[in-house]
Amino acid sequence: MTEPATESDLPVVDMHPYRWGNPQRHTELPEAALTALGQLGVSAPQAGPAELDDITLPPAGLPDRVMQELADVVGAEHLRTDRDTRLRHTRGWSTPDLLKLRSGDAADAPDAVAFPADHEQVLFLLRVCTTHRIAIVPFSGGTSVVGGLAPEGGRFNGTITLDLSRLDELVTIDPVSRTATLQAGVRGPRAEQLLRAHGFTLGHFPQSYEGASIGGYAATRSAGQASAGYGRFDEMVTGITMATPSGTVELGSAPSSAAGPDLRQLVLGSEGTLGVITSVTVRVRPAPAERHYEGWRFASFAEGADALRRLAQDGPLPTVLRLSDEVETSINLADPASGLGNGSGGCLAITGYEGTAGDVAERRAAASAVLREAGGTELGSEPGEAWRRGRYHAPYLRDPLLGAGALVETLETATFWSNLHPLRQAVTGALQRSLEAAGTPPLVLCHISHVYETGASLYFTVVCAQATDPVEQWSGAKDTANEAIRAAGGTITHHHGVGIDHREGYVDEVGELAAEALRAVKRTVDPAGILNPGVLIAP
Amino acid sequence: MTEPATESDLPVVDMHPYRWGNPQRHTELPEAALTALGQLGVSAPQAGPAELDDITLPPAGLPDRVMQELADVVGAEHLRTDRDTRLRHTRGWSTPDLLKLRSGDAADAPDAVAFPADHEQVLFLLRVCTTHRIAIVPFSGGTSVVGGLAPEGGRFNGTITLDLSRLDELVTIDPVSRTATLQAGVRGPRAEQLLRAHGFTLGHFPQSYEGASIGGYAATRSAGQASAGYGRFDEMVTGITMATPSGTVELGSAPSSAAGPDLRQLVLGSEGTLGVITSVTVRVRPAPAERHYEGWRFASFAEGADALRRLAQDGPLPTVLRLSDEVETSINLADPASGLGNGSGGCLAITGYEGTAGDVAERRAAASAVLREAGGTELGSEPGEAWRRGRYHAPYLRDPLLGAGALVETLETATFWSNLHPLRQAVTGALQRSLEAAGTPPLVLCHISHVYETGASLYFTVVCAQATDPVEQWSGAKDTANEAIRAAGGTITHHHGVGIDHREGYVDEVGELAAEALRAVKRTVDPAGILNPGVLIAP
Repeated sequence: MTEPATESDLPVVDMHPYRWGNPQRHTELPEAALTALGQLGVSAPQAGPAELDDITLPPAGLPDRVMQELADVVGAEHLRTDRDTRLRHTRGWSTPDLLKLRSGDAADAPDAVAFPADHEQVLFLLRVCTTHRIAIVPFSGGTSVVGGLAPEGGRFNGTITLDLSRLDELVTIDPVSRTATLQAGVRGPRAEQLLRAHGFTLGHFPQSYEGASIGGYAATRSAGQASAGYGRFDEMVTGITMATPSGTVELGSAPSSAAGPDLRQLVLGSEGTLGVITSVTVRVRPAPAERHYEGWRFASFAEGADALRRLAQDGPLPTVLRLSDEVETSINLADPASGLGNGSGGCLAITGYEGTAGDVAERRAAASAVLREAGGTELGSEPGEAWRRGRYHAPYLRDPLLGAGALVETLETATFWSNLHPLRQAVTGALQRSLEAAGTPPLVLCHISHVYETGASLYFTVVCAQATDPVEQWSGAKDTANEAIRAAGGTITHHHGVGIDHREGYVDEVGELAAEALRAVKRTVDPAGILNPGVLIAP
Repeated sequence: MTEPATESDLPVVDMHPYRWGNPQRHTELPEAALTALGQLGVSAPQAGPAELDDITLPPAGLPDRVMQELADVVGAEHLRTDRDTRLRHTRGWSTPDLLKLRSGDAADAPDAVAFPADHEQVLFLLRVCTTHRIAIVPFSGGTSVVGGLAPEGGRFNGTITLDLSRLDELVTIDPVSRTATLQAGVRGPRAEQLLRAHGFTLGHFPQSYEGASIGGYAATRSAGQASAGYGRFDEMVTGITMATPSGTVELGSAPSSAAGPDLRQLVLGSEGTLGVITSVTVRVRPAPAERHYEGWRFASFAEGADALRRLAQDGPLPTVLRLSDEVETSINLADPASGLGNGSGGCLAITGYEGTAGDVAERRAAASAVLREAGGTELGSEPGEAWRRGRYHAPYLRDPLLGAGALVETLETATFWSNLHPLRQAVTGALQRSLEAAGTPPLVLCHISHVYETGASLYFTVVCAQATDPVEQWSGAKDTANEAIRAAGGTITHHHGVGIDHREGYVDEVGELAAEALRAVKRTVDPAGILNPGVLIAP
């Protein structure tokens, strides 16, 4: 599997319904990994995943009259009910989502998929669906890992997925202000390609980069792997246009304003429940002339976390800054061929610098001095470059892991620095207890991948043997982890979003009164409640 | 008038009802300024401002039964209806607000002022006032310049101002995470004093610093003069607690989160219409060991603005960064004794650096190189230190200016860099046309005081002769300026807030649908609509 040199070299590809990413880059597990999985009691299942033809889809149930009205809006060729299209728009990319499809279950498939050409067609579609009480699933990259694409359509007369892939253009670029307006359906690699043609980068590189899109970044408050340098996606947004059943919302008159609450921040993270984001204006930066990535070793996670905190609080910040705990370091996800437990000990930190040559050299020198003083040992550029080459690799590993009989899933949270270690212990302990009780003791890996002055994210990867019902098995473990996160004061999600999966934790986090305020907003913009029903907050 | 060395040396003082700031520092206009005002046709009015005893207050009209219920919550000694207390809580600090009091008009005085001791008392007060349909004006610093403290209480059975000055404590400080929870009534200087005792600073220094408070900073999305280094207040907030008639809202589980919309951003800027903010958790920073301020001269505003843009986009950013246009430079507000039009030409920029000695030296060297390359001429530390000494001075000048017969007021906006000069020309032109048509040609000064990667703020100061009805005179000029701002694509306010004065421009800016969503939120948390009625959006 060869890796592209930079983000803008990655192609925009059609993905398999349950195998992640570029089909050219699908991968197998190395022998060492299989041996290691055996130590967790993982054994290959008797049957492989369902063939696409064997997956059961519910009948598409929209009346002809409604289909005609929808076709009148987008054109008949852009309203699809064929099996392949419906299957490709069934749920997202969480492990339970994959397990369901692999077991042949596509019960959540939409009745139809509409491909609108522009903002006005989205507005019209929303009106038609409001009239006929048809649930709408806004879809651009389709990469949700929290159930954001499988709303509760039961109360409605059908479900239509609204695929924004035709909204695929760079609308305007302002090189003086360094802003660009991109349509919602522009996917990560294409956004970079469009901006590079003008000398700019967005700098937003979540692990879903190959699949996810501008609209999805905004709808889910995405955070990319280079957030230390480029910021979270919500920090990049200066303007946003959203179509709702009640009309258009257009926000963002200035870089910053005291004109009331920042309503852009109400749209960011609304996960398709308040409207369909059709374009986003983002701050862009000059494409970096220079990149340098390297590795550092710390004796312990606590020592490494302290070092990261010093950079986050007193600077200078690298463009990428992350720290794996001892278990994750020993496994080395960037190069799983090295097998589990290579035993070199300690915790691996990755620092990456992107910018002008002078900026990279200066920041690197200054940050390295801080890391050295904080107890870090320089490992040179090889571990950094290995991480950079492999940084979109992990989702590709999940398919062969599931095929080998392993259950693998991730979850994440964030908290203030003083609460980081208690939260990590609470979540790790909860996952271990829950899965041990289920007879499938797990390996729990953890890393910090996003740092702030006041705190950091924690990202967990869990691997264990699949039980008889792996969906049920993970559901129990996830519930226990969510309870631990909230009890320990962490946010229910740092960058995966709420979807259906986190909505209880979300209401617990913001409180019932704030949730009720959000419902009031939804009633205003979506009086029939057709937009992603049940996502974010229960109706 | 001697100036304190640092912000934490400033005292928390009781202000005169219509004279800004510390009574020890009230000032007179220098002779040179009076001569210059003569050139604008300004002549001293025949009568001075009303004495406090001559100001007419409406009768306090709350029934005894209601007063008793309120007193039961806060204690009789903390429920005041005396003339002095009511007068001190009448309106805010806009020029029209001052003109009204100076002319003896206190028609907007509240019926009573309650001083709750804590969050629970605020909750109880809100319930009592909901039951009896009494309008509530949340009040902490009382420094609004946009009519935020004179709501439309007409539909209600009275108006009570809720003064939060007893909520005056540092609740907790977390030196590891660098966060501090401050009660809403803590005023600027006290916040700095409380934090300095732990080695920290908030770094939020708006021009209202001597009067304004933590709760007001949050409610109005305040931006301080050192925003380039410390950020806007909304960027400092990690958590917020708000009492509403429907209960408590508590937000902020993590430095950053993807758990739905960022509802903190819905409270920030809500200007007391959604609830009473009772405490705020803010990011703090180590108190700076070193400060260095200096001046730079640019040949033109355009050249200077380009230089500021280079620092804002490619760094490094000073802690303070501002640029006066040619007119403001010639007048030199920091040292008005030098008179109007000293004729040295060009535009003055101020750069200030605060931090560790090493950080200040490095940033200063690098930023100076950029400024030099951009055409700037170094003027040394004297103009910088003069600005720093005088930075809270401008509001003190307004009282003697009004007394001398001048009309003086400020307004502000922000936009993207590519739109900066068209917006400035549009606003300046509108103010000049409107006031010339009224027979009082103005002097219009402008500066940039807040910069972002994608744009900057524009702050205008207007001076002209008072017409017969100066409130009416300014109202016409302000309306024309607001229309020009919106037509030219700027935000209706960068940091003054919306209040009553900007609410039409605000609805124009966010659109009727977003305004309706905000009304829906208000109905949820404030079903009787008692909180600051008419502020932010018309009911």
